[in-house]
Amino acid sequence: MSTTTFLTPVQEQIYLVEERMRAQANEEHHPDLRAALNHLISAGGKRVRPTVVLLVGNMLGAPPERLIALGAAIEMLHTATLVHDDLIDGALLRRGIPTLNSQWSPAATVLTGDFIFARAAKLAAETDSVAVMKHFAETLAIMVNGELAQMFDARGIYDRTHYYKRIYAKTGSLFELASHAAALLCDVGTDVRERMRQYGYNIGMAFQIVDDILDFVGDTATLGKPAGSDLLNGLVTLPALYYIEANPDDPNVRLLAKGEYHNTARMKELIESIRHSEAIRQSLDEAGQFTRRALEALADLPTGVERQALEDLAHYIIERHV
Amino acid sequence: MSTTTFLTPVQEQIYLVEERMRAQANEEHHPDLRAALNHLISAGGKRVRPTVVLLVGNMLGAPPERLIALGAAIEMLHTATLVHDDLIDGALLRRGIPTLNSQWSPAATVLTGDFIFARAAKLAAETDSVAVMKHFAETLAIMVNGELAQMFDARGIYDRTHYYKRIYAKTGSLFELASHAAALLCDVGTDVRERMRQYGYNIGMAFQIVDDILDFVGDTATLGKPAGSDLLNGLVTLPALYYIEANPDDPNVRLLAKGEYHNTARMKELIESIRHSEAIRQSLDEAGQFTRRALEALADLPTGVERQALEDLAHYIIERHV
Repeated sequence: MSTTTFLTPVQEQIYLVEERMRAQANEEHHPDLRAALNHLISAGGKRVRPTVVLLVGNMLGAPPERLIALGAAIEMLHTATLVHDDLIDGALLRRGIPTLNSQWSPAATVLTGDFIFARAAKLAAETDSVAVMKHFAETLAIMVNGELAQMFDARGIYDRTHYYKRIYAKTGSLFELASHAAALLCDVGTDVRERMRQYGYNIGMAFQIVDDILDFVGDTATLGKPAGSDLLNGLVTLPALYYIEANPDDPNVRLLAKGEYHNTARMKELIESIRHSEAIRQSLDEAGQFTRRALEALADLPTGVERQALEDLAHYIIERHV
Repeated sequence: MSTTTFLTPVQEQIYLVEERMRAQANEEHHPDLRAALNHLISAGGKRVRPTVVLLVGNMLGAPPERLIALGAAIEMLHTATLVHDDLIDGALLRRGIPTLNSQWSPAATVLTGDFIFARAAKLAAETDSVAVMKHFAETLAIMVNGELAQMFDARGIYDRTHYYKRIYAKTGSLFELASHAAALLCDVGTDVRERMRQYGYNIGMAFQIVDDILDFVGDTATLGKPAGSDLLNGLVTLPALYYIEANPDDPNVRLLAKGEYHNTARMKELIESIRHSEAIRQSLDEAGQFTRRALEALADLPTGVERQALEDLAHYIIERHV
């Protein structure tokens, strides 16, 4: 099941979230900034993060208006980090659409990202919850610190603990925030909030592992970038780690261990080896364990369309395009 | 009187603000990030913005702990905007100390600025005031939009309305926030809060006008950059506007009106003309009017050391180094 049925119960509210996002640049702001924001919002993906916000909040009875603000805040935060990340990576396309930095100066791109951060913070404040705001700011710091660590740390082979820390900063933390913050807007006990935090954390971790698997098994057309591009950039993700553990004497593994990931021909051989190895299934099993924990966190919660959609979403995350 | 007597009543609390700022990068964060933050905090200026926060808050009875958080939040926000501005301008020195971007890659500088924004937002949330958070986020958006407008707009001669809008975004808005947000933490009526907003707004506007005057009359050693550097970059500030109004037929004014600010030799002549013209006194008078309005906003507020210091601060702003 790789369908997006989980979207159905919140489709109307997703439009409201997008409307709220677009409203963040208005006649007070520079016309070019408004155009850039519209471009970025139109280029958006499936809105998985606001969907989590809305499903959890609706299931637990959050006030709709504050929930829309939260969904918009989290998607804006996500958008702002993508703007700065694409600038830093020099990426020209995202989801097949030209990035802001491919068309604008670095200076304008930095400031547009800053503006979107500012509007994300304003939207977070519009939840009227100090607790949400604190978690929101903390998550932003975790994400940025993760990006900095990835930039400063020498390329090389790290262990799985290091990998999990990195993908938590990159993806897990924002999914965790989406689910947890939605629960913070509801009149429910700390145990339910903790379960929702766990749900978000686990689907977020599964999401990134699957992304990292797709980087090996996907094709260029679907990925919008060459297969194995993580490894070609010296970034060792879970499938590579499993392969390395099982094949320490592969000459290409030895080369990678020496930091020679710039040897493209040899790294392409390694990518092929990983692609056809047990490491893919092992990584999928690992993602599956996170999904299982996410589903366990939903046990005892009220049954209904939202809970069903949250389950569907957890399944979708590990089954998409694989 | 160009002394900093206004600092005396809050000196101890300023240390607490700086400590709180330094604590924003801890063992969870990358060591290079901690080093960068310490460098930036050590290179800090007179802490005028947190001083406003502390004086206003102490005068009106704000809870000290939340006041320290607010002071740190505002100084962190100021620091983050400087990091990105210096990157965008390619500035190598600030206050005679190497900028982050002069030593780090653009990517690391962008992310360090982002991290400081994140910590500023977290500190703002620690005031436990949703109203403060909303104003905080709005001010950040105003500042970034102002930077973007300055970047996108064609260089040229604009009128004073445009100039005031620009310096409000650049400086006035953050002083306004410092003073207003401190009052929002106090158990006082909306009239007092409005007065404090006005106080902050007016000293902020005066502050920037005096900065713009100093750019003409200061010497390179004090400024840390060549005199007239605004005009050499095509930025027409208040002294230039007054001079242009009085001398429309000056050939160098005509050249500037044609957008030829890259003609350095002729612009240096124009800078000399402005420097020795009535425009300097007119601009100072203008700053003095803002100061007068700031002092008026303090009328009827409780007399005591804090009010005296706020008055001293208003005087200091227009009398420094002129």
